[in-house]
Amino acid sequence: MTRILYSLCGADESRPFSPHCWKVVQALHHKGLDFVERPTPFTQIPELEGGFSKTVPILRDGNELVRDSFQIALYLEERYPDRPTLFGGEGGKALSRFVERFSQSIVHPMVTHIAVADIHDMLGETDKVYFRSSREAFLGRRLEEVKAERDAVIAGFAAKLEPVRQTLGFQDFLGGDGPLFADYILFGALQWMRITAGTQVLAQDDPVSLWFERCLDLHGGVGRHVTAA
Amino acid sequence: MTRILYSLCGADESRPFSPHCWKVVQALHHKGLDFVERPTPFTQIPELEGGFSKTVPILRDGNELVRDSFQIALYLEERYPDRPTLFGGEGGKALSRFVERFSQSIVHPMVTHIAVADIHDMLGETDKVYFRSSREAFLGRRLEEVKAERDAVIAGFAAKLEPVRQTLGFQDFLGGDGPLFADYILFGALQWMRITAGTQVLAQDDPVSLWFERCLDLHGGVGRHVTAA
Repeated sequence: MTRILYSLCGADESRPFSPHCWKVVQALHHKGLDFVERPTPFTQIPELEGGFSKTVPILRDGNELVRDSFQIALYLEERYPDRPTLFGGEGGKALSRFVERFSQSIVHPMVTHIAVADIHDMLGETDKVYFRSSREAFLGRRLEEVKAERDAVIAGFAAKLEPVRQTLGFQDFLGGDGPLFADYILFGALQWMRITAGTQVLAQDDPVSLWFERCLDLHGGVGRHVTAA
Repeated sequence: MTRILYSLCGADESRPFSPHCWKVVQALHHKGLDFVERPTPFTQIPELEGGFSKTVPILRDGNELVRDSFQIALYLEERYPDRPTLFGGEGGKALSRFVERFSQSIVHPMVTHIAVADIHDMLGETDKVYFRSSREAFLGRRLEEVKAERDAVIAGFAAKLEPVRQTLGFQDFLGGDGPLFADYILFGALQWMRITAGTQVLAQDDPVSLWFERCLDLHGGVGRHVTAA
């Protein structure tokens, strides 16, 4: 059976950077499932699998096609119940959504601000045109203006992760003694920044840094395999 | 068997207000366990159960004594596994800690700022002396100064709950289709403010308001039974 993860890349397809795709890479490894990753530029995503989705990740699992990182995780949990759990039960599923929304509403805007200009510079020429146009419309100003203001975002970054830091005072992972999909959600956001901007926003001895390093080591170091920018 | 919850009160013991005690009130009802609540002023807590704990909640369950709201919830889950679950599995336990740390590091400081002067005014005379002294030392200024600045905190409150709001776009409770202990954690913080300051910080049609109203209705409306300030 062919299992394919369509992910996102810039001009260099050896450096896939999408936070949502990294969640799924970790989830597939967590489940011990072999797969082929097909990093794809932004503007080629609509051509994948007959136009199945406007965004990646897309997972093809034999005859099944699934989109959206959270939906893919739920699919994997249901389809492969005998493999290590991604959620640790129904409560874990529901509360992983809260972690996702924390990451999406608090962490992602900061990473976008810090990294958006660097992401632009990583893209192929066709993608650059699409990316600048769509992101500048969303952000309401030029990428260069966003980049110029990023020092304030970097300075405030660590404080925004205080709930994570305090949680890691009780346990090694958000998921408890070991990682769950909730860890991969937040890992995805920080891995996205690591690969694109490479910005150090946390002290090396910050418990969140130590957790992120643990996540980079998981599953044979698949996260560390793509080097920091 | 006698089951006693020692909680916190001011001069009027019919208006217990501690966020942590409200978490346990809801948890006990969730488990369908009868109990007697013993609201206790701050300065009498050290005398409870032979000096068992400096803080409430304290749960006496037959011969067992347990302190700390999270520890009490874990105890109830283990002791009464056949009653409705408070966590929905091991993943839910681990991620409830993240919800607790979100509430504690983001919501509690705002509620403290808004309500601390009102809480002072609700206390008996002996407690007032203790409370003013300890809280002014912690906050670094007079309660009246803190109260004078609270409009800015009120104005920023709703935005801080964006991860909760977005989660409730997917499901009725943080715990999914129904409430789990994670819901009671955040409920406790907002119930604390409702009973002490009574401040409206959210629009009535805010999804977080609608969720809070659902929480007030749970378990025969035990949360609504104590009226808003």
